[in-house]
Formats: sequence, structure tokens, C-alpha cells
Amino acid sequence: MKKIFSVSALLLMCVVTFAQQALWGGAPVVSPEIHPDNTVTFRLKAPKATQVQVTGDFLPTQKIQTPFGEFDGPGVADLVQKDGVWEFTTPQPLEPELYSYTFLVDDLKINDPANVYMIRDVASVTNVFLIGGGRADLYKVNKVPHGTVSKVWYNSPSLGMDRRLTVYTPAGYESGTERYPVFYLLHGMGGDENAWSELGRTAQILDNLIAQGKARPMIVVMTNGNADLEAAPGESSLGFAAPSMQLPRTMEGSFETAFPEVVSFIDTNYRTLANKQNRAIAGLSMGGYHSMHISKEYPDIFHYIGLFSAAIMPDKNAKSPVYDNIEGKLKIQFDTPPALYWIAIGTTDFLYQANVEYRNMLDEKGYPYEYYESGEGHIWKNWRIYLTEFAPKLFQ
Amino acid sequence: MKKIFSVSALLLMCVVTFAQQALWGGAPVVSPEIHPDNTVTFRLKAPKATQVQVTGDFLPTQKIQTPFGEFDGPGVADLVQKDGVWEFTTPQPLEPELYSYTFLVDDLKINDPANVYMIRDVASVTNVFLIGGGRADLYKVNKVPHGTVSKVWYNSPSLGMDRRLTVYTPAGYESGTERYPVFYLLHGMGGDENAWSELGRTAQILDNLIAQGKARPMIVVMTNGNADLEAAPGESSLGFAAPSMQLPRTMEGSFETAFPEVVSFIDTNYRTLANKQNRAIAGLSMGGYHSMHISKEYPDIFHYIGLFSAAIMPDKNAKSPVYDNIEGKLKIQFDTPPALYWIAIGTTDFLYQANVEYRNMLDEKGYPYEYYESGEGHIWKNWRIYLTEFAPKLFQ
Repeated sequence: MKKIFSVSALLLMCVVTFAQQALWGGAPVVSPEIHPDNTVTFRLKAPKATQVQVTGDFLPTQKIQTPFGEFDGPGVADLVQKDGVWEFTTPQPLEPELYSYTFLVDDLKINDPANVYMIRDVASVTNVFLIGGGRADLYKVNKVPHGTVSKVWYNSPSLGMDRRLTVYTPAGYESGTERYPVFYLLHGMGGDENAWSELGRTAQILDNLIAQGKARPMIVVMTNGNADLEAAPGESSLGFAAPSMQLPRTMEGSFETAFPEVVSFIDTNYRTLANKQNRAIAGLSMGGYHSMHISKEYPDIFHYIGLFSAAIMPDKNAKSPVYDNIEGKLKIQFDTPPALYWIAIGTTDFLYQANVEYRNMLDEKGYPYEYYESGEGHIWKNWRIYLTEFAPKLFQ
Repeated sequence: MKKIFSVSALLLMCVVTFAQQALWGGAPVVSPEIHPDNTVTFRLKAPKATQVQVTGDFLPTQKIQTPFGEFDGPGVADLVQKDGVWEFTTPQPLEPELYSYTFLVDDLKINDPANVYMIRDVASVTNVFLIGGGRADLYKVNKVPHGTVSKVWYNSPSLGMDRRLTVYTPAGYESGTERYPVFYLLHGMGGDENAWSELGRTAQILDNLIAQGKARPMIVVMTNGNADLEAAPGESSLGFAAPSMQLPRTMEGSFETAFPEVVSFIDTNYRTLANKQNRAIAGLSMGGYHSMHISKEYPDIFHYIGLFSAAIMPDKNAKSPVYDNIEGKLKIQFDTPPALYWIAIGTTDFLYQANVEYRNMLDEKGYPYEYYESGEGHIWKNWRIYLTEFAPKLFQ
């Protein structure tokens, strides 16, 4: 009997070897290394490379010339080689934020092999790191009670398929009997039901705001706004097909029309406070456009509306009853004003002017709204900020 | 009013440009391309590289010499350059399977920039692709009813922290009132509560087996077997620290002792059939070791036990009552024989001999078990196969 449970030295060594194999691919350098003063060092072991650069949103932007004009693009910094290891340290400490970056090795864009943390945004995968402090502490997993994040499928009769949702239920949901308000949170073009939970850090933000008493415990429902798709890339019957930003049926009324099916599914299957006073809807870019239209199409469903960098710019070729008589429907919506109509945008956003015009129209009509203006443009950094600003205003 | 909702050509062009920026990083080649005959072409645009190779489990293994002996390692194939694009096509069609691969560019291991689908295994991130057909169709998201996959936190008083679980509930769980049996599924060394759902394709396998009537609808609970950790890398208060295989408190009794806390949480918060007849436990490698010990420590809790490539090789320095009187506890367990005691291993697994010895002991004692032997070794391909074989045997 003893022999059976004894450990031979060989077996232990095999485990070590196996471990090394499983770890093979991990680079023998630390990268990124966040120093105590919040400067950051990036490293890549690549003895045969002739040029290594790092690009990411932690660097000052640089102007990019395109046929359509000049745009802000991510900065690029050179790494310097010593003994086969390339290195770059930021000259200044970085502000608290969730940053993303990739390397350029002889012009080939690669992820950092020393950093397993990556986020996909449409068809790009970038490494991420977090500088804590200030608002960025809301993006961390802290030692607070954690809600549940579920990938749930609902049936959409009008879109003709089962479709996937990400649902956040607050800490205590499983063990309690309480009913909760519901916040519907919509992604932008090219995004999907994973975007807000991954790029947007929704669960971390809600966990932290709720633990601090700054937001009410609520259910957050993150939909897939691409009416032709069942689910995010890799999560549907399309298999591991390449993700695309040019999807059909995104801003042509189908998703907006079908939205009550989501609300009905959630109210049927979760302990919700199933009334207008306890429902919010917000979205970024295309999701802001969706939120504007859904909330005006169904003025009795949502009492809190958030337009984050909203794409107030429909495709003129899109024919849908959703886009008919917008003025009349907005009037009905604002006849019983929403508890909150919140508009946020960054000063360099390419949608800034469209939002100015939309706000001018609301002002003209005397429709009340709150406005939040941030720096920078059409980026996830802003959408995380807007979520931290918007969620505390809900259901109070 | 009309002006406000009109789309300027500029704005549309901005969106196109933005799309291009978001897609920047996606390589201008298709890779991998799966041809109709199941040969596969890999491509990488890297005009300045002098050598590009691909390595992965789709290639025949090659012998690796180590100080501890000769082992099977992944094969390597050379890509050939034309006009800056490197290319390799498998000489033979590939068998149905979920495969993983990475590129080696001048010895630097990188992920395929044209393929956003990656899986992390401990500290390695590899790209994946799937060749359908046969058993591999169980690994696909098919058009069948889908269960829910949730990331749920439970409190462990004995481990002194909140800890994260992955919980699969079968299709219909949310809308129904039925109670379900529960299958606890444990990962190996270096793994975590994400391993079985990501590398193991648990939700897809269960969705498909249940839809085909081959497995009973059941709840599957995937724990984190590292007693010192709250959650998977990046999902705990440790932040984006590098994952490690050398973790403390993995095979020294703490996790095994604390396991009833998980069962109690699940029975309290889910609609379970809360009795021995409706509980299964299985695990791979270290998780097989955990399953062996947990099931013998708590013989009244589990009726179905699966040891997948089990690491029957405790650390002799580990002092825990869990490892005392193993023989006597196994006798108690087998006095009321489990409905199923299932042992599976691959013929080239470094744990093969340890499993032979364990089976010999069971034979000697007359303890009944079922045995499943596969080809190859200590790899996820085998653990997915074992799951597809084991799940249909449960709760029948």
C-alpha cells in the first residue's frame, strides 16, 4: 500500500518538466513592470530583431494623416536593446488608468509574450495593465463583495434565434429574495455582449460603487446589438470566424424594435423591479444611438437614459418605422420627462458636433437633460469614466 | 429638426476611419485558413523576418531531450516567404479536434495576429482553431439550447476569503422549477476556475450532450483548487500579476478539507438534488488527486467519481489529516461502492505507471471501478475526451 502512494523522484521531476513545458512561451523577462512611482518598463527578449517599438494609449497621441483628414493616433516609443532584451521605461509616471499596448517588432505587431492579460476590441487584441489610484481603483478587483457575471441565452422570436447576454447580478442576489432595478448597457459598432464586461470593467465598477454605497445594487444587462448575430465572435454557431466591424443589421431598426423581448426575458427570469422607475438604458456610440431610439420607441419602459459618445447619425438608407416621426416620439417621451436623460462626450470625439446639435434641439424644445463633457475622444477610457459617473445617478 | 438627424458624409467617413483604427493590428492575411479537405494554411505577414515557424499540437510530436529524460514535445514546421507573407499548409488533412498553435519569428514566440482566438494555459497563451466532425462537434457552439455559464463568488470561512467559481446551469434552468444533479469538475496544477470552461469546452460539451439526450441536464461547478487564491489570474485582488504554476497550498489538504463549503454554497443557492445519488466529482491531474481524496474524505457526499490522468503522487512533506489512514478511508468509501469510480489516462502520460499501481491496489482490494485508456499523454485533448465519455455515465 505504501508503495502505491509513494512519490518517486522521477515523477516529481516530470511534474517540474511538465510545468516548464506549460510555461514555455512565457518570456524570461518581466513586462510590463510597474515601478513604485508609476513609471512603467516594457521589455521584450528578441535578440534577432533589428527594431522594437511599443505603441499604446499610455503614450501621448500623435497626428495621423488620412484621406479624410488628420486624426489622433496612438504614440510609438522605441525600445533599446541590451544583451538581446529590448527595454523602454516611460519618462514620466503614468496617471491611474487601465492602459493597453502592443509591441512592433520589425513592423510586425505582436502581443507582449510576458503578459497574458489581453483584451479583444473587435479584431484587435492588445495587452493591458492597470495603474491604480483615484478612479482607476474602481476598475480593480478589490476585496469587496462580488456580484455574479453570467452568460445567458434568451430566445428572440423577432430576430429568429437564441441570443447571448451578459448579466451582472449584484452580490447577495443568489442568496436573497430582494428585487432589483435593471440597467441595460449597450455596446458600440463592432462590439458585442462581452465588450462592457471586458473592456468596460462593468462588474468591477459596479462591485466597487455598490460596496462604497455610491450606487444602488442593480442588475446590469449587456446585450448583443448586432441583430444578425447570436453572440460574440467565437461564442456562436459561426465558430472561430474572424470578427468584423462591417456587420449587417446594426443601425436599421431591428435591434431597437426587438428590445422589449430582452426586457421581458429579464423580468421573467430574474428578481427585478419590473417598472419604468426601475429601468435604465445607456450605450456607447452605436449603443447610445440604440438607447436614444429604444427609449423613445418605448417611453413607458425606461426612466433613466444615458447617451455615451452617442452616434446620433443614422444611415439614411435604413428604412424602419423606428426612424419615422422622431420629433413626435421624443415629444411623447419628454411629456413625462425621464428621471434622467444623460449625455456625455469627449471634446475631441468625432461625434462631438453631432451631439452639440442634438443638445441644441433638446434645449430648443425645453427637454431636460444632464450633460457631462470629458477630455479626449471616442475611447474606452471615456466610456469607463461615463459608467462610473452614470451608475450612481440611477434609481436614487 | 431634419438637420440634426442628417448624416454628413464626413461623419460616415470618420466612422470608417475609426473602424480601420479599431481593426488596426488585424493582419491583412487570412490565418489559419481551414480548407474544405481539412488541410490548414497558416500565414503571417512579416517582410523583415528571416525565419518563421509554426508550432502546435496539430503537428506530429518530436522528442525533446531534458536532464530528466526524453519527452514528447510539440512539432515545428517552417513557413515559406513570398512577397513578405510567410505560409505553411499541412501536408495532410487534420483530424477533427480543437488545436492550438503559435508562431516563432526569428525564435520569438508570438501569437497569430490574424487570429483573435486564444486560450491561456497557466502562463502560455496560444491561438486555437477547430476542425469539426466526429467528437470535435461536441466542442462547437451548435444551434442547440444553451446553458448559462456564471462566474460566482462564495465565501470560504476555512480558507478565509471570498472565492470564485464557474457554474454551468443547463438550458431551461432560469425559467424552470426543476432540481438538478451536480457535477463538481476540478482543474490541474497551474489551472483555475476558468480552465475547464475555456480549455475544456465544458459548456459546449454539456450543451451538446444534453441536446442529444446523451447526458442528463446537470449543474457543473468548476472550482479554483489553489487554496491560497481567490480566483483566476487577473480576476482576483492580486490584479494583473503573472500567473504561476508554483503555487502554495495546492496538494496539502486545505482544498480537500474545505470542499464541503462549496457543496453547501451550491446546495443553498441553486436548485440542486442535494444528496449523494445526485453528486459527482472529477478532476484532471491535480484535480484527479483532489477528487480521489475529497471523495474518500466525504464518502457520503459523492456517488460518481472520475480520475482523469490523476496525479496519484502526494507531496510527502504535506502534513494533513487528509492523507492519514488512506487505506482505511478507501475501505469505508468502497463499503458502499460508488455508483461509478472511473479512471482514465493516456498511454504516454508520465502518470501512467502511478495509475497502474493505483488500479492494482483497487483490484487487490476488490474495489470496483471502470477504466478508460486513451492514446497520448497529459494534454487537454485527452481531458476533453474524458469529459465527453464521463458525463453521459452520470446520474443515469
